[in-house]
Amino acid sequence: MEQQLIDWLREQLPAHPRVRLGIGDDAAVLAWGQQAGCVVTTDLLTEGVDFLLPQDDPLRIGRKALAVNLSDLAAMAARPVAAVVSLALPRHGAQELGLALYRGILPLAAEFELPIAGGDTNTWDGPLVISVTAIGETTERGPLLRSGAVAGDAIVVTGDFGGSILESQFTFTPRVQEALALHARHTLHAATDVSDGLSLDLGHIMQASQCGAEVHLASLPLAPSAEIVASRSGRLPWEHALTDGEDFELILAVPEASVGALLSERVGGTSLTRIGTFTEQPGLQLIHPDGSRQDFEPAGYQH
Amino acid sequence: MEQQLIDWLREQLPAHPRVRLGIGDDAAVLAWGQQAGCVVTTDLLTEGVDFLLPQDDPLRIGRKALAVNLSDLAAMAARPVAAVVSLALPRHGAQELGLALYRGILPLAAEFELPIAGGDTNTWDGPLVISVTAIGETTERGPLLRSGAVAGDAIVVTGDFGGSILESQFTFTPRVQEALALHARHTLHAATDVSDGLSLDLGHIMQASQCGAEVHLASLPLAPSAEIVASRSGRLPWEHALTDGEDFELILAVPEASVGALLSERVGGTSLTRIGTFTEQPGLQLIHPDGSRQDFEPAGYQH
Repeated sequence: MEQQLIDWLREQLPAHPRVRLGIGDDAAVLAWGQQAGCVVTTDLLTEGVDFLLPQDDPLRIGRKALAVNLSDLAAMAARPVAAVVSLALPRHGAQELGLALYRGILPLAAEFELPIAGGDTNTWDGPLVISVTAIGETTERGPLLRSGAVAGDAIVVTGDFGGSILESQFTFTPRVQEALALHARHTLHAATDVSDGLSLDLGHIMQASQCGAEVHLASLPLAPSAEIVASRSGRLPWEHALTDGEDFELILAVPEASVGALLSERVGGTSLTRIGTFTEQPGLQLIHPDGSRQDFEPAGYQH
Repeated sequence: MEQQLIDWLREQLPAHPRVRLGIGDDAAVLAWGQQAGCVVTTDLLTEGVDFLLPQDDPLRIGRKALAVNLSDLAAMAARPVAAVVSLALPRHGAQELGLALYRGILPLAAEFELPIAGGDTNTWDGPLVISVTAIGETTERGPLLRSGAVAGDAIVVTGDFGGSILESQFTFTPRVQEALALHARHTLHAATDVSDGLSLDLGHIMQASQCGAEVHLASLPLAPSAEIVASRSGRLPWEHALTDGEDFELILAVPEASVGALLSERVGGTSLTRIGTFTEQPGLQLIHPDGSRQDFEPAGYQH
């Protein structure tokens, strides 16, 4: 349903010289005059969809609202420059809730030396809505895009997968430092962050880059809690790793010549794992530990 | 209530080298690296507060959500560069509503050659929320700020006042062209746009510039519908002109030496009117047609 609206919108939006890249990547890259690329991304989180009150701690909700935007900047290898925060606060207890949200937002902003440059704070009779827009700048090497992966590139991921439901969807660290360091020191062909699910976001790179991928299940880095998640759901840990959303790790397309050196990096203690290879043959194939192959339809959180 | 939250927030936000100006003006001015000033502003509109459904036409609501942000860019004399739009759409009829909103947004964007560079479209069980963030760039002359007015400067306004309730709050044209043309051709000391009410927004310039003001009531340009508004409310047309919000006209502080030449301008047919003078003496004084003076507490829409 929303997809129809988004498709309609894409048709309405003509190419514009100031937008080097718009809807359909993790963020838009703007350029005008003498300026380096200015990257802009926005996410709107709503009560009942992205979080529940009073179950979820407002500090964690506020933190997450900023963190998902930083993760989008990381996906483009953009340096965070500033963010603006808009709130629609339920009238009852608005001040207390607003303070709690900012007590989650501000420490994360400080961690990334990111100024909150403005915003719009409102009260109303509806549930909580948080809208954050983050602005970044591309580095000398330009933005990382979803397009650019070629057959033969290694698929490398940061961190681990399959545990987001239990914990990390609120506590994850956006991989900004990792993206900047790896983009500066190695040749990367494409990137995205995992918001919708590892297989679905990998599918976004495949689609934008017009290639396929094969993923070795034995290589998937599983979160410590993936077993617990799987035991509760009755599904397998690797299924959660491939199809749960909100891991907010990075997927990188790394040329074969660079992958050895890249995998020896440890940026801030974050693990890097090669999970497979981009292929000429379209579609996603899983390779089981016994060597058998399985066609897999990318799945995850569909917008 | 919200003011307390905003005051607390200001204390929490340290000065940052990338933010030349933050919360407390119409928009934030960012600067980094080689770049000219990048201006960012955001507004969040909520059902029941900023508009009513189904009474208000979604086309007009969508148009307004973008227009208020363009008005903030105009207040800084910034050229619009791009905007991002986030929607929280009530689940029932979401697609139809989303389309209607964009049918208001896109023509205004086209009018200002402004790309919609991205966004986030969601459905939920709550009422409609629209969050727009606009990015602009300062011109060679830098941004216009609320600070900078000095005693003796003429107070000049665009357009007319007192009719916003009946019509113009949805149909106003953000004064982007006017601000850019006047800032390029004349010396301006300060500016803001009238979102909260002429006297209250004039008060914002007075506060930021540490001066007072006197306004001649006979000089106030009244909207054609101000008489109708007044006849319905039982108040006087000039009271509506000074205290109703959402006129989205500009208030300019113009040095005496420039005011003659400036007032002879007609940018796109928009009228320019001198309504008074900034003064050393603090506070706002109204001068009635009979010459009597009245101290007036700036009033309007209090956030």
